[in-house]
Amino acid sequence: MPSVLVAGASGYAGALAARLIDRHPRFELAAITSRGEAGKRHSDVYPHHRVNVVMEELDLERHGDVDAAIVAYPHGASAPVVAALLERGARVVDLSADFRLRDVATYERWYVKHPHPELIGQAVYGLTELYREEIARARLVAIPGCFPTAAILALAPLARADLIADVVIDAKTGVSGAGRGLREDTQFVAVDENVRPYGVGEHRHMAELDQELAPLVAAFTPHLLPLDQGELLSCYITPTRQVTQSELEACFEQAYAGERFIDLVARAPGVRDVRETNICAINAHADERTGKLFVFAAIDNLWKGTSSAAVANLNLMFGFDEGDGI
Amino acid sequence: MPSVLVAGASGYAGALAARLIDRHPRFELAAITSRGEAGKRHSDVYPHHRVNVVMEELDLERHGDVDAAIVAYPHGASAPVVAALLERGARVVDLSADFRLRDVATYERWYVKHPHPELIGQAVYGLTELYREEIARARLVAIPGCFPTAAILALAPLARADLIADVVIDAKTGVSGAGRGLREDTQFVAVDENVRPYGVGEHRHMAELDQELAPLVAAFTPHLLPLDQGELLSCYITPTRQVTQSELEACFEQAYAGERFIDLVARAPGVRDVRETNICAINAHADERTGKLFVFAAIDNLWKGTSSAAVANLNLMFGFDEGDGI
Amino acid sequence: MPSVLVAGASGYAGALAARLIDRHPRFELAAITSRGEAGKRHSDVYPHHRVNVVMEELDLERHGDVDAAIVAYPHGASAPVVAALLERGARVVDLSADFRLRDVATYERWYVKHPHPELIGQAVYGLTELYREEIARARLVAIPGCFPTAAILALAPLARADLIADVVIDAKTGVSGAGRGLREDTQFVAVDENVRPYGVGEHRHMAELDQELAPLVAAFTPHLLPLDQGELLSCYITPTRQVTQSELEACFEQAYAGERFIDLVARAPGVRDVRETNICAINAHADERTGKLFVFAAIDNLWKGTSSAAVANLNLMFGFDEGDGI
Amino acid sequence: MPSVLVAGASGYAGALAARLIDRHPRFELAAITSRGEAGKRHSDVYPHHRVNVVMEELDLERHGDVDAAIVAYPHGASAPVVAALLERGARVVDLSADFRLRDVATYERWYVKHPHPELIGQAVYGLTELYREEIARARLVAIPGCFPTAAILALAPLARADLIADVVIDAKTGVSGAGRGLREDTQFVAVDENVRPYGVGEHRHMAELDQELAPLVAAFTPHLLPLDQGELLSCYITPTRQVTQSELEACFEQAYAGERFIDLVARAPGVRDVRETNICAINAHADERTGKLFVFAAIDNLWKGTSSAAVANLNLMFGFDEGDGI
Repeated sequence: MPSVLVAGASGYAGALAARLIDRHPRFELAAITSRGEAGKRHSDVYPHHRVNVVMEELDLERHGDVDAAIVAYPHGASAPVVAALLERGARVVDLSADFRLRDVATYERWYVKHPHPELIGQAVYGLTELYREEIARARLVAIPGCFPTAAILALAPLARADLIADVVIDAKTGVSGAGRGLREDTQFVAVDENVRPYGVGEHRHMAELDQELAPLVAAFTPHLLPLDQGELLSCYITPTRQVTQSELEACFEQAYAGERFIDLVARAPGVRDVRETNICAINAHADERTGKLFVFAAIDNLWKGTSSAAVANLNLMFGFDEGDGI
Repeated sequence: MPSVLVAGASGYAGALAARLIDRHPRFELAAITSRGEAGKRHSDVYPHHRVNVVMEELDLERHGDVDAAIVAYPHGASAPVVAALLERGARVVDLSADFRLRDVATYERWYVKHPHPELIGQAVYGLTELYREEIARARLVAIPGCFPTAAILALAPLARADLIADVVIDAKTGVSGAGRGLREDTQFVAVDENVRPYGVGEHRHMAELDQELAPLVAAFTPHLLPLDQGELLSCYITPTRQVTQSELEACFEQAYAGERFIDLVARAPGVRDVRETNICAINAHADERTGKLFVFAAIDNLWKGTSSAAVANLNLMFGFDEGDGI
Repeated sequence: MPSVLVAGASGYAGALAARLIDRHPRFELAAITSRGEAGKRHSDVYPHHRVNVVMEELDLERHGDVDAAIVAYPHGASAPVVAALLERGARVVDLSADFRLRDVATYERWYVKHPHPELIGQAVYGLTELYREEIARARLVAIPGCFPTAAILALAPLARADLIADVVIDAKTGVSGAGRGLREDTQFVAVDENVRPYGVGEHRHMAELDQELAPLVAAFTPHLLPLDQGELLSCYITPTRQVTQSELEACFEQAYAGERFIDLVARAPGVRDVRETNICAINAHADERTGKLFVFAAIDNLWKGTSSAAVANLNLMFGFDEGDGI
Repeated sequence: MPSVLVAGASGYAGALAARLIDRHPRFELAAITSRGEAGKRHSDVYPHHRVNVVMEELDLERHGDVDAAIVAYPHGASAPVVAALLERGARVVDLSADFRLRDVATYERWYVKHPHPELIGQAVYGLTELYREEIARARLVAIPGCFPTAAILALAPLARADLIADVVIDAKTGVSGAGRGLREDTQFVAVDENVRPYGVGEHRHMAELDQELAPLVAAFTPHLLPLDQGELLSCYITPTRQVTQSELEACFEQAYAGERFIDLVARAPGVRDVRETNICAINAHADERTGKLFVFAAIDNLWKGTSSAAVANLNLMFGFDEGDGI
């Protein structure tokens, strides 16, 4: 069985990736590492994941000889680890933003100076529904941000058909999307009984949207909700021409025929419907009153939005069934 | 002190209205009635409101001789009670939809056959910021729906300035907005850890929006959130011409100069910021990237969205300070 | 592979049992039935369970020839179905209270007239940690109530060692334990931002506690919490003699040596630690200040408290590994 | 009107105290101070409190000449400020633990070295129902901890009647009780869908319980719940002799006759029943099955448990009606 390292297993995304690999029928969990909590058992930090393995300090001498790695480091910190693992021959799935953007300047405008711009060309954008063949051949996959995952899946069929003149994306997300760091705005009392827009006009995920939906420039605003896991995108589209409900549905059915992890549903989905699954549930509505098209897409930000997506990509990279272990 | 009847005090809105009148420095609570829970003490059903008064079966002989009434009945059931109370000389604030729409046909398309169309002409739309003078002279006020309240306050300044070419309203609401009736979709397990659009393309509040924002036809979609009280509207506007941030802010400042219950805030508001207040908090953002205008408006759906608004209207109708008792 | 019928798959417990059997590596899901929602697809009611099977009206002619059945009917309604299935040769795991109590009179005091008292003698109380051998030989297993499951696991080691003079059990449970029926006290607005004791002095699960912990009579009070799945029992024991922390820990370690689904943890567990697992996490504290022993036990009421427990029992009845499929 | 300084207005308790004084009909808010957020407007941090006042750095020269002060500092930091204010002639209500314990050694065992032990003798324990007359004459009042407030109100009537042989207190609290500091265990994701005991065997409030309930030594364990404000204490009492339900009720009715802020209720209260009130709701149950007495007490930890209690004490100290402004 191919061996897999999970680097950065103490954050929410890395912790879930470790669990999925630990239970995976075709991969072996080689080791898990953590920068801040090395020495702790994974199950002491995340008891319900039931991963009874000690998190170690990353040591490429000891951990680098693996068949594959999932890297769950913050942007900027991830690229050097990815580079070192690639150098040793491992195939790498990166959860950070470091290899999502194909344009270095764009990356550096939103994030930091890129530590390894020479690797960007190798990276495949790990949205399996759109780039399945490239992923299968890739040595480096960049998992999309959770918002772009749902947004692109919601909009790509219409964008390809040149049906989008203008689009507004209103995103709603649970708190786990903000990561595990201590912040005042993710304290229970700040979030409970509240809903608030954030990153208005300046959320980093917009750069990914621009790249993947070009030449469209989508208006995008995320909102923080009092729930743990789950993300709903409400997309309001001004079409380039009149579109009927049946035409709209046909467009999605054709685009996603045979896609096991896309659920085209008959009524607008809730995030509970996809909780702890690799599914993106999509509902499309041609609004007679306004002539607009509404597309609602729900995912679990930690699963389809990050960690089960990472495993699906890894499955493809090793020729396994895309759904193994998730 | 003028005496006030609260009819329909066992639902969330009527119960809060009863509390506000009970503690009001200038009104006297004459009686509270309930169709389903007559005989129960208000404080047995809503202990934290501390209204130690028994809810009675409505009896116009006994209850009709009041100076004013707040009627919190469902649509269709409200109009006959309103008519009878007006007949006896009471001034009436109605929380239902029965007198919000000036066009009978529109009302009947969305609701039921109108029981008292002859009274529609008398009714004033009870949005104090827009109709303060008419309210002061009114004998019948129809409190706007909670969504229209926030939407109109968010959009009216721009609409009046002819700045809106197109608008998408994404609304997020707590569960109390659905009322107290038993429904599967408001059970705890259905709402908790969830967010879901509802009434897609067919929410009744759209008729009010159309009436007040005409000739604009706004796209409007509400979403149910796992919280009790609170409503956030995210409005995405395509302007008729380019608008700068400072011009945008000036537009709102001018429109709401001197309005005590409008808070123009510097960052996008959360619903916690206005919890249990008569405030609508508004933040406007001119989005350079897309050229759109984003307006966020937060209210407490039971307070500014319904019951404290009712009291503010009643204050105006009796020549009191608009903020008395709220 | 043995075939399994899940009867009553539209409630929370039956729905989860259907999912677990549907994904089970050693059982085949023969059919799922529902009394109130026959004709609907399981995945329409519980999308995240991903069980793409239509729920049928129970028809013993068509559904009765199975190797085993999990029956998730309300008490009183369950026994006749269980009897019919046993008659046809199926092995049955019953989730209701109908076969938990060995004494008919006790059952009838708390519930209804027992429809099949003659079968009570056949039933094994399905707490695998205590009755593993009897379960392996059983044709009928009664899954314990969720509160008794956690309470007995928390107290049995001390009770067997005759260390309990007196015990108070304070139970905290999520809302899913109340089932899916529409009730005012499980509406979101009633539960949110609240905690309330219920069934004070009269909860039916006390009869099971009395049976299994006799001659102890435990004080027991459940509380409803604003969360979906999860149950925490805080047990306060006056011991028959002084017990040290190390003696206390030794008592639990000895009792549960080799038990894979009991986690003896070093600090008091939260219900999140065992969410969606078949684990009971237990922590014991000898309180020097009062001389009392505190035992905290956390389970997922729908998993270890009901449906994964049902599958564990079924595994044992068919000679499979107890943890298969859960 | 007497002027009141609120020192430490950026924490939850001080912020609420500032709001209550700001709206109080008989006190004038002289100034509000904050150690960490001086310069910010109160309404920027707590918009819904609507206190449009800038928080200042505490400067006794400028702020010390007030008639009274509410000090909401952490333990240890509070005593010096209290001492300085007393020195200048202000009457002081202290929300910290610094003057709750009459025994210096006990204080120092649980907290830190006491900065002003000479003042302990002057302090009155600010539980109005028990010490109303002493409070009226006091220059320094120490507001009880939120758990002791509810526990003592629940148990004092039985303790005075010598009816308690043994008592177990199981406390459940919302997250605001932990204060506003950033902590991993109060992050949304740690609290949501969870319930966990904490401070097992070592919570500081036990010292207050011992002092006020002596010679009783109560077993006491708090649990953290996914809600903001609210605290429920479930007290399980082994009585010194058999007590009937009617005798139990009579005991409480006699103890609390005429107490406006004690609600003796017919069924076990939820914390929602007392949300944002100065009320302690109490229900007592004589459990025939076990012979024990169950007493349930619900308060809002920030109101009756801290800040509205502070205002009630201040009212008494100035000869005002105890309920003014709360």
